[in-house]
Amino acid sequence: MKYYVLTIFPEMIEQVLSTSILGKAADKGIISFEAVNIRDYTLDKHKKTDDYPYGGGAGMVMSAQPIYDAHKAIIERAGHPIRTIYLTPQGSVFKQPMAKEFAKEEDLIFLCGHYEGIDERVLEEIVTDYVSIGDFVLTGGELPAVVMIDAISRMVPGVLTNEESGINESLEGNLLEHPQYTRPAEWNGKKVPDILLSGDHAKVDQWRHEQSLIRTAKARPELLNKAELSDKDVVFLKQNQLYPEK
Amino acid sequence: MKYYVLTIFPEMIEQVLSTSILGKAADKGIISFEAVNIRDYTLDKHKKTDDYPYGGGAGMVMSAQPIYDAHKAIIERAGHPIRTIYLTPQGSVFKQPMAKEFAKEEDLIFLCGHYEGIDERVLEEIVTDYVSIGDFVLTGGELPAVVMIDAISRMVPGVLTNEESGINESLEGNLLEHPQYTRPAEWNGKKVPDILLSGDHAKVDQWRHEQSLIRTAKARPELLNKAELSDKDVVFLKQNQLYPEK
Repeated sequence: MKYYVLTIFPEMIEQVLSTSILGKAADKGIISFEAVNIRDYTLDKHKKTDDYPYGGGAGMVMSAQPIYDAHKAIIERAGHPIRTIYLTPQGSVFKQPMAKEFAKEEDLIFLCGHYEGIDERVLEEIVTDYVSIGDFVLTGGELPAVVMIDAISRMVPGVLTNEESGINESLEGNLLEHPQYTRPAEWNGKKVPDILLSGDHAKVDQWRHEQSLIRTAKARPELLNKAELSDKDVVFLKQNQLYPEK
Repeated sequence: MKYYVLTIFPEMIEQVLSTSILGKAADKGIISFEAVNIRDYTLDKHKKTDDYPYGGGAGMVMSAQPIYDAHKAIIERAGHPIRTIYLTPQGSVFKQPMAKEFAKEEDLIFLCGHYEGIDERVLEEIVTDYVSIGDFVLTGGELPAVVMIDAISRMVPGVLTNEESGINESLEGNLLEHPQYTRPAEWNGKKVPDILLSGDHAKVDQWRHEQSLIRTAKARPELLNKAELSDKDVVFLKQNQLYPEK
């Protein structure tokens, strides 16, 4: 998987992606990143990449030309069309199934906006996917791009080691994860639940599943509607007065 | 506003926060960051910060002791309790009103997990807020912490200049933003809508508001239920067959 990021802050992208698990995956050659500086493509003699909005109003709007030319240069080098994601509160909300879908691509381009947005005309020309990571406002598109790259990369085969991936994936099956404990068995006056020390795997699995049900019902009851609950799960939730009223 | 970030990847945090608009705000002394390396507080002779989960299963669990001691050191230095946010898919979903609420704090601590999570007992001791930035899975809590810091900092007085803030804020009033255009008036065969060149501010404002209504109705109809629509807005949406069925 190769990621291209169109940005006016390339150093922000490069630094984040060179550390942590993504940095290791890049060292192994499984994924690669290229931050493309939009400013390098402006034909403006003062190297400007933005201008005042038509119709007035506060803020600046990023110009069409440098973004279009930077994008075109990537496509020409790659030799094939590439899905191009624009990070915007206007987009579809990013969720785990979307991460899995994007992970099947050979390469992806992320376009990061700033200020009051980007000239609509270049968006119409180059953007294939409008995506938002949530209903909050950020100073620019770089951080949500990096978040998406992280979530997508986890789904690319070979990026996670077995140790990192685990069997119990949060949000798999639409249930939240059960609590976890590690050594020591008693810490700060608090003991690990006895059942986890019992060595009875069937009971441990059952306890963990019930804890997931309890947590989901308490913190995110709307997820239970999407979860595939067994008859036994429904009985357990009803017994604990946690089954959501429709 | 002072942010403390408890992490095993301090360099990832420091690099991101030193660039862009947040870096400028830090230079001006309006906000400050401190990445606290959890590893510096482990009492384990091999400097380990994680261990196998009780009850078995794949993955490693971050131990209670180093996190607890790192947190305690921050609180002792600050001399007062500090709201402590744990980034987890188990948390309440982060939205703009939460960003505004956190922006009122004097300082905040972010706890970034990795692997299969953190020993439940230390979470019970130190965490005041469980927050998720969305229904997707990341390799660790660092990126969502930085995203939250960015969204919160925008709400701290003095961080954004007038130019950066603008009047039309995405998601204000639960409507998506209208399209933006800047020079040239014709680019790549595409013209800026005539109305934006008319100089008639009342008409421009009306056009922009209608564009916001159209975009919201098409991309995020569920937001319209939360928006404060005027009678005129409802008529406009119905005329365009965009008023959502209840």
